[in-house]
This record gives sequence, C-alpha cells and structure tokens, in this order.
Amino acid sequence: MTDRTAVTVIGLGAMGTALADALLGNGHPTTVWNRTAAKADPLVAKGATRADTAADAVAASPVVVLCVLDDASVRAVLAAAPGALAGRTVVNLTNGTPQQARATAAWAADQGARYLDGGIMAVPPMIGGPGAFILYSGPREVFEEHQGLLAALGAATYVGEDPGLASLQDLALLSAMYGMFGGFEHALSMVAAQQVPAVEFAPLAASWLEAMLAGLPGIAEGFDAGTADNDESNLAMQAVALDNIIDASADSGVDPELMRLLRARMLRGAAR
Amino acid sequence: MTDRTAVTVIGLGAMGTALADALLGNGHPTTVWNRTAAKADPLVAKGATRADTAADAVAASPVVVLCVLDDASVRAVLAAAPGALAGRTVVNLTNGTPQQARATAAWAADQGARYLDGGIMAVPPMIGGPGAFILYSGPREVFEEHQGLLAALGAATYVGEDPGLASLQDLALLSAMYGMFGGFEHALSMVAAQQVPAVEFAPLAASWLEAMLAGLPGIAEGFDAGTADNDESNLAMQAVALDNIIDASADSGVDPELMRLLRARMLRGAAR
Ligand SMILES: NC(=O)c1ccc[n+]([C@@H]2O[C@H](COP(=O)([O-])OP(=O)(O)OC[C@H]3O[C@@H](n4cnc5c(N)ncnc54)[C@H](OP(=O)(O)O)[C@@H]3O)[C@@H](O)[C@H]2O)c1
Ligand SMILES: NC(=O)c1ccc[n+]([C@@H]2O[C@H](COP(=O)([O-])OP(=O)(O)OC[C@H]3O[C@@H](n4cnc5c(N)ncnc54)[C@H](OP(=O)(O)O)[C@@H]3O)[C@@H](O)[C@H]2O)c1
Repeated sequence: MTDRTAVTVIGLGAMGTALADALLGNGHPTTVWNRTAAKADPLVAKGATRADTAADAVAASPVVVLCVLDDASVRAVLAAAPGALAGRTVVNLTNGTPQQARATAAWAADQGARYLDGGIMAVPPMIGGPGAFILYSGPREVFEEHQGLLAALGAATYVGEDPGLASLQDLALLSAMYGMFGGFEHALSMVAAQQVPAVEFAPLAASWLEAMLAGLPGIAEGFDAGTADNDESNLAMQAVALDNIIDASADSGVDPELMRLLRARMLRGAAR
Repeated sequence: MTDRTAVTVIGLGAMGTALADALLGNGHPTTVWNRTAAKADPLVAKGATRADTAADAVAASPVVVLCVLDDASVRAVLAAAPGALAGRTVVNLTNGTPQQARATAAWAADQGARYLDGGIMAVPPMIGGPGAFILYSGPREVFEEHQGLLAALGAATYVGEDPGLASLQDLALLSAMYGMFGGFEHALSMVAAQQVPAVEFAPLAASWLEAMLAGLPGIAEGFDAGTADNDESNLAMQAVALDNIIDASADSGVDPELMRLLRARMLRGAAR
C-alpha cells in the first residue's frame, strides 16, 4: 500500500527544498515553511501548501521533517511552536552532534512527540535517487511505521535506538569525506604549482582513490584488532612517501601542513 | 609481436618482488638482485637469474628496473655499478620527488644511459592486474619502445617529457590517498569511541566515499577557476558540519586536530 501520509517540511534551503520536492513527487500532501518565506514559492507552484508560521506548519501534518542550518535553528523553530508537537512524529534531518540529538529527543518526549534523528548522506541533487542514503536512529517502531515515507528521500538505513547513533555515523562519514577532499585539494595545489591543470589530474585521482577504497576493510580490521602496519606497505616505506610529498610540496611553494599532520598521526598510530 | 626483452629488477622488497614476478610471468628473461640476497630465492625458484652484485645485475640486461626504498638507496645501488649503465635503459620505479627524478635523469644521461622515471599506483598484489597503473615520464620514444614490457606491470600511463612529472603526480595522488585514509581513521576513532565496531562502519564509509568521488571533477573545475563555494553545499553549512564533527569528537575523547586543520583550510580557501 502506497504511503500518502501528510508531511510538513520546515527549512527550505538547498536540502529542505530537495526533500519537499521528493515528498511532493511521491504524492504526499506536503506543507512547507521557511523563515525567509519566498523560498517556498517554487514548491507552492508545484503543489505544496504554504504555512504562515512555524506553529501552523507543525499543526498541519502528523509527520514534521526539520532541515535547517544547525541545532540552534532547530531550537528556534520548535520554540515558536509551543504545544503543537504533541502526538506528532518529528524527523530531524538537521546536521548535529549525538549529544544534541539526545537532548532534542528528550525534549520531544517531554512535549509528547515521537522523535527520529537522521543524517542525510547525499547532496541535494541526489535526494530521491538511487545513490542517496539517510541514517536514522530512535525507536525502531517509529522508523518502521514511516519507512515508506522516508524511502521517498533515499535508502532509509536504521542504525539503532540511541537517538545519537545516526548523527554519530553521519559526522564520522563526513569526517572521512573532508579528509578525502582535503587530501585532494592538497594534490591539486601540488600539480597546479607545476602547471598541470586540476581538471586534467582529477580523473586520475578519481580512479586512484576508487582503487584505494578497497583498502578500507583491511584498515578497519587492523583498527579493531589494534594493529596498523602490514607487510605489503610497511611503515618505513610509507614514511618515505610522506617525506617525499612534504619535500615536493615545499619545493613548489605548497604548504605541507596537512601532510605533516598526517605523517605525525601515522607514526603515532604505529607506535601504539 | 610479444616483447621478450631481457630485464633486470633491482630491489626485491614487497614491490620489487611483485614486479619481477609479473615480468617472469610474461616471459621476460629476468635477472634479480637485492641487498639482502635471500629475498631473491623465491624468484630464482620461479626461473629468475640471480646476480651476485649490483654491477652484474645492471650488466645482465638492456633494461634495468629499480625499485628500492628511496632516492638514497637508488644512489647507493647505482654508485656500486660504475660504468655499467652506458647504452642501457633505466626505469626507476622508486618513490621520489620531481627534483630527485630530474637529478637522476641528468646523472643517467652523463653515464650514457636512457632514463624513465615512474610512479607505481598500486599495492603489490595489484601488479600485473587490471587495477594497477604506473605513471611514466621522460623521453617519449624510450617509453614507446618499452611499452610492451611496461604493460606487464600495469596500465602504462605516459605523462610527459619532463622526468619529474611522473613523481609529481604520483606524490599528488598519494597525498589525496593519505587524506582519505587519515579522514577514515578519524571516522573509525569517532565510531569506536561509541562502541560501533570499525568493521561494521567500513562498508558504509566505502559507499559514501565512492558516492562523494563524483564531486572531484566539480572541485577541480572550481580550483582551476579560482572559485570554491557552490550553491548546493554552501560554506556556512559546511562550517557547521565541521564544528559538529569537532565537538562530537571532543565529546568522545577523540583528538579533533585533523578536523580543525581541515576546517581552517576550508575557510582560508574560501577567503581567497
Ligand atoms: N546541502 C548539502 O549538501 C547537505 C548534505 C547533507 C546534509 N545537509 C544538512 O541539511 C541541513 C540544511 O542544509 P542546506 O544545504 O539546506 O543549507 P542552506 O541552503 O544554507 O539552508 C539553511 C536553512 O536553514 C534555515 N535557517 C537558518 N537559521 C535559521 C533559524 N535561526 N531559524 C529558522 N531557520 C533557519 C534557513 O532559512 P533562511 O532561508 O530563512 O535563511 C534555510 O532554510 C544542514 O543541517 C546540512 O548540514 C546538507
Ligand atoms: N608497497 C607498496 O604498497 C608500494 C606502492 C607503490 C610504490 N611503492 C614504492 O616501491 C618502492 C619499494 O617499496 P617496497 O614496498 O618494496 O618496500 P620494502 O618492502 O620495504 O623494500 C625496500 C627495498 O629497498 C631496499 N633497500 C633499502 N635501502 C637500500 C640501500 N641502501 N641499498 C640497496 N637497497 C636498499 C631493500 O633491500 P633489503 O631487502 O636489503 O632491505 C628492499 O629491497 C618504494 O619506493 C615504494 O614507495 C611501494
């Protein structure tokens, strides 16, 4: 049976707009609200209902999706809707920490609302498509009840009852991504300093990083087991490679600070 | 016509052994030498010829592949074979800097040898397989003459006449990889601190990083154009996410230094 639950989306930045769009596209009666009202216009043109206040928005639907900038914005929105939350399900897809998620879950419980915390693992154009996944944590029965609705946004991945678990893994995944992007930007600086255009180098980097993703399970096994080194790519050899990166960067006037830090971390990790 | 050029491999660590193995497997008469002689035994058992000295090893074949720890080891090996290099082709697959590659190329020219510098983009088990690629720089005609032999090791990718270009791109690719691995290890520390096993988290991270590789061409375009921000994932939002990573890490007793550095670099990059 297709889920047609009415839903409210609060926060219509790049991500909230993509979420509301996907829900509308899946036939959910969708009410929208954004602090800057004009951002609702394109969604209203597509059939969404505009709420005039955050309180009206919350009151309009049994499921309320929040996607604003940060935890302070979540607090500001919810404080503007006193008493309206009772009996509803709040799905908070705003990026936050595990501690924030646990605090909001406790607050929602006090208001008589049910609460799921989520972490969106996608950029806005991916929402509703096959590559997007969203981590959820909170009561399993609440997740299961709304799985159909949540699936409209991307693969709905339940990670546990503790409401902090989705944001924990969300932030951990983002930290891995920022490491990858930071390393990639260092790489671009190195090649650009010797007149190799970034766009020429990028496909090579994508192939290489894709191949190196195969190393992740082995690193994770070593991490759980408390071992770091391995025979194929020993530490002395890796330290030479990092020294060469640092020297070559400095030779070209590229700040090697990130590589110095990664080298120090690798040696410290091996020493443990 | 199948290439059956005789080849010498000097340096039989994890990588040199894999290279010699692949050359033997492709029917090249292969002479091997390693400072610690016993490491040649398995290759000799498979049909390689053992040289007793580095000078004998160089004298045995028209093509000499070097794969030792670092540039100092290359110097040590070559210094032990005075005069033996004339008329031969040296393929140096030892990790080094562009400046070292240019210096070794000049030295080889003085000795009457032809020189290719290479950067191996693979771990040893990948050598000779479909995922391995090796970057080469130096005279194009030398590369083309030996393309058949080099193809036995992995996809042979020519990047230019300047002998420093292969190691430049090799080191840049490694810097991207170390960024990715460093970020991943930070992520593992975050989840492990809240009792999520690394091996459970790793497949999620692999999917996520794979999806995020699609962002590399856009980052490279922005880099060449001197722009960093974009509408879909704006800077204020990213700074919040990094703050949340830093806070959540610190909450769990995980050192946030890497994430602090990446945050500072992102904001500095955006300010330029
Ligand atoms: N974009 C991505 O790639 C991406 C990916 C995964 C997760 N996310 C997460 O999705 C959330 C939204 O991101 P986004 O890309 O949509 O950001 P955005 O385009 O910058 O939008 C921010 C939204 O937050 C609202 N807001 C800010 N302060 C507020 C306040 N004090 N009270 C009420 N509303 C407030 C803004 O309203 P105004 O229009 O009135 O300013 C706007 O709707 C963030 O937590 C982000 O981490 C984003
Ligand atoms: N393994 C990888 O994943 C990988 C990937 C790409 C590139 N590479 C590059 O391949 C090269 C070799 O790496 P590897 O993994 O084979 O390292 P390895 O297993 O540590 O082997 C190092 C080799 O260098 C030799 N060596 C060290 N100092 C020497 C000296 N002063 N004179 C002569 N020989 C010396 C060693 O000889 P002894 O046996 O006598 O010590 C050994 O054969 C490095 O430049 C590395 O960056 C490796």
